[in-house]
Amino acid sequence: MGSTFGQHFRVTTYGESHCLSVGCIVEGCPPGMELTEADIQPQMTRRRPGQSSITTPRNEKDRVEIQSGTEFGITLGTPIGMRVMNENQRPKDYGNSTMDLYPRPSHADWTYLEKYGVKASSGGGRSSARETIGRVAAGAIAEKYLRLAHGIEIVAFVSSVGNEYLFPPTPTHPTPATNPEFLKMIEEINRETVDSFAPVRCPNKEASERMEKLVADFRDRQDSIGGTVTCVIRNCPSGLGEPCFDKLEAMLAHAMLSIPATKAFEIGSGFGGCQIPGSIHNDPFIKAPAVPPSQSGLYAAAPRPRLTTKTNNSGGIQGGISNGAPIYFTVGFKPPATIGQAQHTATYDEEDGVLEAKGRHDPCVVPRAVPIVEAMAALTIIDSLLAQQARQTARSLLPPLKGVVPAKHTVVGGETAAEKA
Amino acid sequence: MGSTFGQHFRVTTYGESHCLSVGCIVEGCPPGMELTEADIQPQMTRRRPGQSSITTPRNEKDRVEIQSGTEFGITLGTPIGMRVMNENQRPKDYGNSTMDLYPRPSHADWTYLEKYGVKASSGGGRSSARETIGRVAAGAIAEKYLRLAHGIEIVAFVSSVGNEYLFPPTPTHPTPATNPEFLKMIEEINRETVDSFAPVRCPNKEASERMEKLVADFRDRQDSIGGTVTCVIRNCPSGLGEPCFDKLEAMLAHAMLSIPATKAFEIGSGFGGCQIPGSIHNDPFIKAPAVPPSQSGLYAAAPRPRLTTKTNNSGGIQGGISNGAPIYFTVGFKPPATIGQAQHTATYDEEDGVLEAKGRHDPCVVPRAVPIVEAMAALTIIDSLLAQQARQTARSLLPPLKGVVPAKHTVVGGETAAEKA
Amino acid sequence: MGSTFGQHFRVTTYGESHCLSVGCIVEGCPPGMELTEADIQPQMTRRRPGQSSITTPRNEKDRVEIQSGTEFGITLGTPIGMRVMNENQRPKDYGNSTMDLYPRPSHADWTYLEKYGVKASSGGGRSSARETIGRVAAGAIAEKYLRLAHGIEIVAFVSSVGNEYLFPPTPTHPTPATNPEFLKMIEEINRETVDSFAPVRCPNKEASERMEKLVADFRDRQDSIGGTVTCVIRNCPSGLGEPCFDKLEAMLAHAMLSIPATKAFEIGSGFGGCQIPGSIHNDPFIKAPAVPPSQSGLYAAAPRPRLTTKTNNSGGIQGGISNGAPIYFTVGFKPPATIGQAQHTATYDEEDGVLEAKGRHDPCVVPRAVPIVEAMAALTIIDSLLAQQARQTARSLLPPLKGVVPAKHTVVGGETAAEKA
Amino acid sequence: MGSTFGQHFRVTTYGESHCLSVGCIVEGCPPGMELTEADIQPQMTRRRPGQSSITTPRNEKDRVEIQSGTEFGITLGTPIGMRVMNENQRPKDYGNSTMDLYPRPSHADWTYLEKYGVKASSGGGRSSARETIGRVAAGAIAEKYLRLAHGIEIVAFVSSVGNEYLFPPTPTHPTPATNPEFLKMIEEINRETVDSFAPVRCPNKEASERMEKLVADFRDRQDSIGGTVTCVIRNCPSGLGEPCFDKLEAMLAHAMLSIPATKAFEIGSGFGGCQIPGSIHNDPFIKAPAVPPSQSGLYAAAPRPRLTTKTNNSGGIQGGISNGAPIYFTVGFKPPATIGQAQHTATYDEEDGVLEAKGRHDPCVVPRAVPIVEAMAALTIIDSLLAQQARQTARSLLPPLKGVVPAKHTVVGGETAAEKA
Repeated sequence: MGSTFGQHFRVTTYGESHCLSVGCIVEGCPPGMELTEADIQPQMTRRRPGQSSITTPRNEKDRVEIQSGTEFGITLGTPIGMRVMNENQRPKDYGNSTMDLYPRPSHADWTYLEKYGVKASSGGGRSSARETIGRVAAGAIAEKYLRLAHGIEIVAFVSSVGNEYLFPPTPTHPTPATNPEFLKMIEEINRETVDSFAPVRCPNKEASERMEKLVADFRDRQDSIGGTVTCVIRNCPSGLGEPCFDKLEAMLAHAMLSIPATKAFEIGSGFGGCQIPGSIHNDPFIKAPAVPPSQSGLYAAAPRPRLTTKTNNSGGIQGGISNGAPIYFTVGFKPPATIGQAQHTATYDEEDGVLEAKGRHDPCVVPRAVPIVEAMAALTIIDSLLAQQARQTARSLLPPLKGVVPAKHTVVGGETAAEKA
Repeated sequence: MGSTFGQHFRVTTYGESHCLSVGCIVEGCPPGMELTEADIQPQMTRRRPGQSSITTPRNEKDRVEIQSGTEFGITLGTPIGMRVMNENQRPKDYGNSTMDLYPRPSHADWTYLEKYGVKASSGGGRSSARETIGRVAAGAIAEKYLRLAHGIEIVAFVSSVGNEYLFPPTPTHPTPATNPEFLKMIEEINRETVDSFAPVRCPNKEASERMEKLVADFRDRQDSIGGTVTCVIRNCPSGLGEPCFDKLEAMLAHAMLSIPATKAFEIGSGFGGCQIPGSIHNDPFIKAPAVPPSQSGLYAAAPRPRLTTKTNNSGGIQGGISNGAPIYFTVGFKPPATIGQAQHTATYDEEDGVLEAKGRHDPCVVPRAVPIVEAMAALTIIDSLLAQQARQTARSLLPPLKGVVPAKHTVVGGETAAEKA
Repeated sequence: MGSTFGQHFRVTTYGESHCLSVGCIVEGCPPGMELTEADIQPQMTRRRPGQSSITTPRNEKDRVEIQSGTEFGITLGTPIGMRVMNENQRPKDYGNSTMDLYPRPSHADWTYLEKYGVKASSGGGRSSARETIGRVAAGAIAEKYLRLAHGIEIVAFVSSVGNEYLFPPTPTHPTPATNPEFLKMIEEINRETVDSFAPVRCPNKEASERMEKLVADFRDRQDSIGGTVTCVIRNCPSGLGEPCFDKLEAMLAHAMLSIPATKAFEIGSGFGGCQIPGSIHNDPFIKAPAVPPSQSGLYAAAPRPRLTTKTNNSGGIQGGISNGAPIYFTVGFKPPATIGQAQHTATYDEEDGVLEAKGRHDPCVVPRAVPIVEAMAALTIIDSLLAQQARQTARSLLPPLKGVVPAKHTVVGGETAAEKA
Repeated sequence: MGSTFGQHFRVTTYGESHCLSVGCIVEGCPPGMELTEADIQPQMTRRRPGQSSITTPRNEKDRVEIQSGTEFGITLGTPIGMRVMNENQRPKDYGNSTMDLYPRPSHADWTYLEKYGVKASSGGGRSSARETIGRVAAGAIAEKYLRLAHGIEIVAFVSSVGNEYLFPPTPTHPTPATNPEFLKMIEEINRETVDSFAPVRCPNKEASERMEKLVADFRDRQDSIGGTVTCVIRNCPSGLGEPCFDKLEAMLAHAMLSIPATKAFEIGSGFGGCQIPGSIHNDPFIKAPAVPPSQSGLYAAAPRPRLTTKTNNSGGIQGGISNGAPIYFTVGFKPPATIGQAQHTATYDEEDGVLEAKGRHDPCVVPRAVPIVEAMAALTIIDSLLAQQARQTARSLLPPLKGVVPAKHTVVGGETAAEKA
């Protein structure tokens, strides 16, 4: 069915471009959390098109409205219904318009028709970017829990547009993973900084200007261009991710490749890491630095692991399970399929022809994809986190074991065995 | 939990390296299919280590044994239990061995302990390559159905080792997707050809030799190196993949990133495609060539779509749904974490020290990963296929509609509306 | 989480009594089916309270509004969002009202607080009868498919109120299952007839009058009384139900016991059948009567089985799988917990006291439960049906087998082996 | 698919009567629990047929063998594979035997053939009682956790055979729920006492003798008879059960009706409760008695609720959620379909005929069903318990709320708000 994501914190979305509304139901949000529309709207607004001259000029007003699941600004633990009205609700009558005759190249018009045998007036049905509204709304709720309960921070930014890179691959650093500058950036970057580099959302002045210029060029040529978004998740507890099929990177890859227009995903050193010797790629363990007392009491339920890694080619995940280091990954977005040029293609009825262009379009989606990547990251992490919290609690209620593990401090349900015994 | 993959054709695996056996239960295999161990063993054997001087010399004898779900060589439609004995069944006593003191860098020893609070004698528990046995066994059953019912062919091969590529990226072709030679290869390649390029499984003499030499170098230096595996799925029906969260590429990414040691995934043009203008990246539609009569009757249930695309930067998937063109993708594998060198790292008890090397190890896993990638591809495709077959059947039982779609031949439950009306 | 029902046709509901709206998302509805609000509203209206002097006088106006998933009155195959506004949207401020001090006996006030640690202003949160709106809306869609594609008919009626029975147990017939009159009734009963016996919905004049009088007595005494609803599903194809854990009766029991106020479920001969010797209880097979030609072509995809049973103590299900005979079951509803009498009980703070009664209440819920039982039956059957249709299609695409089954006409993917071979 | 039960503690079973083995995989068992075959075998043995002259004389030797998921007698948190060999492994060749010609009345032979289109040599495939082995093995693991972590006790016993009852319905007590003797029995009954009333397992000397005589009568007449099993779950924490579709009674009903030969389920007052006025049926709240200090510290994670109910017509569940009182329910089993008499019926090929009897058979299954009911109860409770523990942990990590709930002691994530604030 594919409209549901998550097992423990689960979002189910509905809605096409031209129906009455789009929205979602969020199940599994913990009870007793403060939550109002004001927690959700900011990411909705960051997602909106029409925020600058290089993104599409349409101005959708996406006001989210909570239907259920909260009272007096507190979550009840019951499903949270959310709804955003569509402004253009009326499906178009089928006429002689070009779009009724041609499936748009590299859009979903053709495959939706093949799949369902019914042609929605919007062409690609649920493949529209408008479908991501429900994801972003649900992701904002997930983020709030992650921040309140664990201090988890999720920040995404644009890392390339076309062949303009924030950290171009070099023979020394075929992947940014080995570049200390990159590692420093992902430790420190925040959303305010990212947004300050409007309109591209690439947090480096020089790279941002290069990218902006490239996008402008493609816009002027009535063409489009792709790019990449990199995302970091900080303060993520260790132990997240379910072997074997639901490794944390597998869940992240699933989440990211479900975003419209994505073509590629890499975690940690990624494809570049395939070129590095194991002796360099391996991340040696070191004793983790002490957490300052001012922070140590804050998130007692998720003590930081006693070991960390010296390097982080693993991207915070080893054997499919988070190790407490920053998790980072990069997602590739193709050039938008809608372009301002006529295209030679075929009609639904197999006749050659030319699909004329009309209107203005977004020449590059990556700036707008930033909050969507963050939302899907939040939905993935909260699902793994709730699963692991459940396991640790279940374990902690068992009588303690003695003597089976050689290490002094082995974690037992959140406590060390020593503390417990 | 993470030991289950698939909704409609579902495999659940069990087993660590040092327990009695490893195995799986396959639910949802259609009844009435001929099936014996002889259908499964070949891929099990292709997966085995120890097949050449550049892969690990241990010789596991992995004989699969069907426990249930078939009678007289025919599937009953009930769960198929499968089991492979472990030869080294006895868990090691905890002693003073190095491995008991040190979590191995970039292995899963540390994260498994963080997750479960129990240290398996094998260290990383279910993260071992031995866990993939259940996947390959289940994948072989899936493949047989796909081949018998739809003529679907799945072939994987090694496309790079370190920085030695089968199709190196160039300014003209930042992705092989735009390279006619690559497109020709994925139309024609088969497993026999791939295996004829032992030991590397890269189907090009010159590239294969470069790769073999590189692996030998790393072996001699007691080091390891990563690489990529590319996989093609041919004759896949259109309409597979569930919007929005379970797009076909999202499910493939999930499947591939669940294989041990993977770091990256790209579909179609992938990361390279982010650098190509939309006007070139878009795949125009053309009338599909007629299928020769000798083949047309064979798989009546899955008629080929009437349109196909002139190029295939989409990798056979548009809007998350297959379009009938070859599906291809590439998976990145990191250098193996086990190397023949001493490593400076920390003990479980946070003390600095040196983890000594011992034994001989596999310097590069990509040749052995080939059948595992094929297995996971088969498990992903059969799940999407059964979902789509179910939808088409459900639709076909409804009274026909008239006049809602402008196209003449719109598919309605496997038939065109015209044929039905 | 518990707000989702079904694997193949799946409804997710949201909403409390005092939030903005209640509603649901339906996934998996086949594309290409005619559907508007007019298909859904009749069951919504039958579910409404306030339809007679023996049900609660509140008049909720439950207008359902489709949000998505249809265009021009045709289902698209995408999720169908539905919403019904709450009239009393504002949560009550916490004050000194009785309900804020006392958890109502045998209501969900106390257990919801124990579960979530948050007290919804409506007390029992999602346990309200208002939650059933989403079920009835989704059930109406399921019913339409079942009727159009298979001619399936689902009819429920009141079979007892207190100790007044439609078919009282007797030594000869400890269960109605052995009573020819009962078997005749379930073959013929329809909703129009049931509703003609307003307000009780028990389709027998004399029994209906006895029941109506009993309810009136309890109403006059400010008390309440329980009862049973019996439901029949006719024209259900054989082969539905998934061994072993998801037997068709197990799914029906799950569905029925999820309806508020239910305490018991029996299929076929039920508890009474435990008293009958096996030699009488067993249902012998007989050749199925020929279906009249006027009907035979109508639902070609679901041919009637060639055998049927002479008796039907099995209630249409054997070994967890439907056999084509009418499926019937009975559901027990407790007396409503809200009564017009003061009750001696304890406050949230463990102090003894008296909870005063206020307002008028429904003395018996069974008449109103009739469309809810039908809705849950429809949701259960469509889910099993889509699963079985999927299996049959998957099987039918395999090459035919020969000679493994002794019977001449063994069903193979919807055809007999003979026809296929 | 139906071979999987549970979301958080999940068992997947495999195996027919005549295949190599039967078994299961258990996912989600908490790590760090002591577990060996010795914990599992006792219930396996209680389930075995052939334990007395009134049960079937075949003596299956069901030795369970753990394949994975434990080391040195400790659970690793990874999947636990379990296997029991079949003694009669060879599928029968199809010949002229009666069973090949006739589908046995009220067995699953016919419906399995309708479902799968393949006839297993055992006739009803997975519908055999042998399938319950995997359930009982998994249930024994679940029980151990429930006992160790929460002191939960689950005891089932035979409550009727035919029309011989342990607590016959009377006008005063149409349900045992209102009978103080019954309530006392379910507070105290244990398995040793139940088994001391061999062979019937009805814990009352006089009733047990009546039942034993009845079964003997039916055995002598080559006939069979049904009965009921009642089960109690004590010390179950409050808050278990997921609204709305997965109410605790709905999950129990699902679990119980999935056991072969079951026809009916009732929770608490059940069908009899439908005859009782609401003013009597409602369970008033009272302050819960203090737990003796000797017990209070034992299961700190699951504090007993501060309120309990004076009566227990609810059967420990209100609004679908456990309230801490004993949960009890009754399951109805039909008379076994296999009888020692010839039966007039039809062949697979629709011809009238007589199916001759052969061999000796079990005239009544309820004594043997006792451990199976206990196993399914354990699997249901552990699943709900792990879900609720997860919720409470998630909630407890949020900042405390103030002032929203009027009660002084409202539970917040396991602590009272007062303690937390």
